Amino acid sequence: MRFALGRLVLPEIRELIASQDHQTLSEVLNRWLPADLASLITDLSEHEQVHVLRTLKGQLAAETFEYLDLSSQERLLDTLPKDEAAGLLEGMAPDDRTALLEELPDEESNRLLALLSPEERGVAETLLRYDERSIGRLMTPDFIAVGKQWTIKHVLDHVRTHGKDSETLNVLYVVDDDRKLVDDIRIREILLAPLHSYVQDIMNHRFVALNDTDDEQTAVALFRKYDRTVLPVVDAEGRLVGIVTVDDVLDVAAEEATRDIQKFGGLEALDESYVATPFLSLVRKRASWLVILFLGELFTATAMGHFESEIAKAVVLALFVPLIISSGGNSGSQAATLIIRAIALGEIQLSDWTKVLRRELASGLILGAVLGAIGFLRIALWSAFFTTYGSHWPLIGLTVALSLIGIVTWGTLSGSMLPFALKRLGFDPATSSAPFVATLVDVTGLIIYFTVAVIVLRGTLL
Amino acid sequence: MRFALGRLVLPEIRELIASQDHQTLSEVLNRWLPADLASLITDLSEHEQVHVLRTLKGQLAAETFEYLDLSSQERLLDTLPKDEAAGLLEGMAPDDRTALLEELPDEESNRLLALLSPEERGVAETLLRYDERSIGRLMTPDFIAVGKQWTIKHVLDHVRTHGKDSETLNVLYVVDDDRKLVDDIRIREILLAPLHSYVQDIMNHRFVALNDTDDEQTAVALFRKYDRTVLPVVDAEGRLVGIVTVDDVLDVAAEEATRDIQKFGGLEALDESYVATPFLSLVRKRASWLVILFLGELFTATAMGHFESEIAKAVVLALFVPLIISSGGNSGSQAATLIIRAIALGEIQLSDWTKVLRRELASGLILGAVLGAIGFLRIALWSAFFTTYGSHWPLIGLTVALSLIGIVTWGTLSGSMLPFALKRLGFDPATSSAPFVATLVDVTGLIIYFTVAVIVLRGTLL
Repeated sequence: MRFALGRLVLPEIRELIASQDHQTLSEVLNRWLPADLASLITDLSEHEQVHVLRTLKGQLAAETFEYLDLSSQERLLDTLPKDEAAGLLEGMAPDDRTALLEELPDEESNRLLALLSPEERGVAETLLRYDERSIGRLMTPDFIAVGKQWTIKHVLDHVRTHGKDSETLNVLYVVDDDRKLVDDIRIREILLAPLHSYVQDIMNHRFVALNDTDDEQTAVALFRKYDRTVLPVVDAEGRLVGIVTVDDVLDVAAEEATRDIQKFGGLEALDESYVATPFLSLVRKRASWLVILFLGELFTATAMGHFESEIAKAVVLALFVPLIISSGGNSGSQAATLIIRAIALGEIQLSDWTKVLRRELASGLILGAVLGAIGFLRIALWSAFFTTYGSHWPLIGLTVALSLIGIVTWGTLSGSMLPFALKRLGFDPATSSAPFVATLVDVTGLIIYFTVAVIVLRGTLL
Repeated sequence: MRFALGRLVLPEIRELIASQDHQTLSEVLNRWLPADLASLITDLSEHEQVHVLRTLKGQLAAETFEYLDLSSQERLLDTLPKDEAAGLLEGMAPDDRTALLEELPDEESNRLLALLSPEERGVAETLLRYDERSIGRLMTPDFIAVGKQWTIKHVLDHVRTHGKDSETLNVLYVVDDDRKLVDDIRIREILLAPLHSYVQDIMNHRFVALNDTDDEQTAVALFRKYDRTVLPVVDAEGRLVGIVTVDDVLDVAAEEATRDIQKFGGLEALDESYVATPFLSLVRKRASWLVILFLGELFTATAMGHFESEIAKAVVLALFVPLIISSGGNSGSQAATLIIRAIALGEIQLSDWTKVLRRELASGLILGAVLGAIGFLRIALWSAFFTTYGSHWPLIGLTVALSLIGIVTWGTLSGSMLPFALKRLGFDPATSSAPFVATLVDVTGLIIYFTVAVIVLRGTLL
């Protein structure tokens, strides 16, 4: 394992740089993998970073550069002399380069584009024309396309001469005279076929393709469904324009999960890592949702204000307010979690809402009954030893138990139906976060609780 | 796009089965991809499922079978005659077969193992000996290993004769005489090299490998870090024992995210999809956490009991209880979300806790001040029109504002430090779910609120 290799040998590397021992440094570093070199570079000073990059031979510098985060890439391109910056950019995979260029201010991005060779600049400009978060931004145009009337020998010769730039040789693509995609062929099938046979002899016309204007989520779903390592991308006319490899999709899937989790935790998605997000932007993103939730919770004060005289008559009622509303919030948050994730993974569709409604209604009633029973027992047990709840404790116990059944059922239903409603209205279901559902259930839960109390306790405490 | 192809043509396929038109059915279905066939089969009756599987030619039946969910696979193996079941099992990829066999009761699993050829049985038994959730369970032993003294021509001939069973030909592995892994070589490098050159001429001795006893999460992390589509697996002696492909890891990563999200929503991870989980098991998994949280929340009743006489004197205090404790819960849930995800993605380490503490302390104070200001304004505004809060409203406003600053800061600190504490103690940080943090903060928040009230309102309302 080479985990954290960089951190372990960091002092030694620093010493080699300081002592100007170029040969040893080159021998050590050129044996490393790009991802490990990138981790190492992150821990070095700017001056040392430049030194390390210059020590790397051939493609290794550009490959290492691809693994750096966007802000390090930006900083290094600023520091390096123009020709070295151009060399790194030229050597990057087109998809990684697009990710870098789209982050930069237009002016900076244009300055860098001008450093590229005309050919690579054309590629970069084409990719940048696609929408952000579209598949066009993820793809690379470096693939191998062959004709169906080619012999296997012709294909292998073509791969040998043109394969150097291709992002992957695992799959080759068969296109017709209009460059329309007609099949994909795995390299294994080429290798296993006799040299004199034709491409069309091993075609099966079964293939899956992405559209260049589809969003990233579609790519994740298709890769998961069809278990592929690479998928072709076609334009509106069905012409092959690029390929997407699964390593890029793995990152996209992780980012998506992070966004969902953050929304679910009740804050705007950060887009950058916790560490990389500037402090003020972090506070702002948290404050916006916190304030919205707070404004919602202000209604709890209004709701309770309506029952002020009841609380004054029976202060004991106030003691159970946190217990009761939090149970509604917790059950709502559980239900919302389950449904949001199931919708995100495509396990349930919008049309399944009645099935889910029945299931959650039953769950809510059972869960409410369980909590209600525990609540009643607690009050009964306490009343055997203390006088906190007075002589009317059975009625108070009944109020708490009935309220819990009502509120947990209501919380479960709200939590499970809200994601469907949001999706139906065209919003992201994940917006119905745990705190959002809890706020909704808090206000309504108070009304349920005090209404039950008024009915049960009329003539005794109230 | 072929999304939901199955559902669209379902009636037509049913008709073809009913009318016994074998030839048309075969022509249609044998053009489909395994994943699409699997979606179709899920919507058919058992009798129709068997019919469709029998119509598929060669490997297509086994490949389609691999895409079915575990319970469908189990049911079909029970229904099919012994020899057909054996054929499907024999044709499955070893890693998918392991996933099926490990789910079955021992007796059933042994019955199926007996159907396999001695060779495949040996493979299956070896894989089943690994721990659940270890990399050994994910891997397949079908790979191509070559020697460093082989010529490129020898390698290509070997691939042609032995490549049929390999899960992927994208990467070949170089082993020494003890079968120890010494390098990996991408097929592109083999294809681009002259036929008479030697494997050792294109070796660079840079490779990454998984250990067979590592857990699945390590595999996900390594695939993400090194952007690979396939990684070799070695045993404790460094011998090559299998390979893991990224499509399996994509599923593992999705399952992990689901488990994290479910834990975060305050329930035990389901392990199966929402739809596939039986009703009672669903209720049980939700009830267990809900009851634990409820028992925790019972302390809010105890805490408020201590301040019963204060509430009796100033009922207005009770009105703000839900508002105040929910703000603590929401800010804690935000902080916990951020930190849990950052730990899961490896963005922050245990040792970073002091840095996070400082950052979160500052965030908490600012966020608390923002909410406190809004709360005070709301009370001031209301008091201009209503008499709800009486003549002492500025003091009540002050109580609410100061409490909010204290509680939001406390919630933020608890939410951010709890994941560190859990990780330090060897638990999963994701256990500090939003509801868990909220419960903790509810109880302490009440104490903060009433203590502030006693200090601010002494001599006036109290």
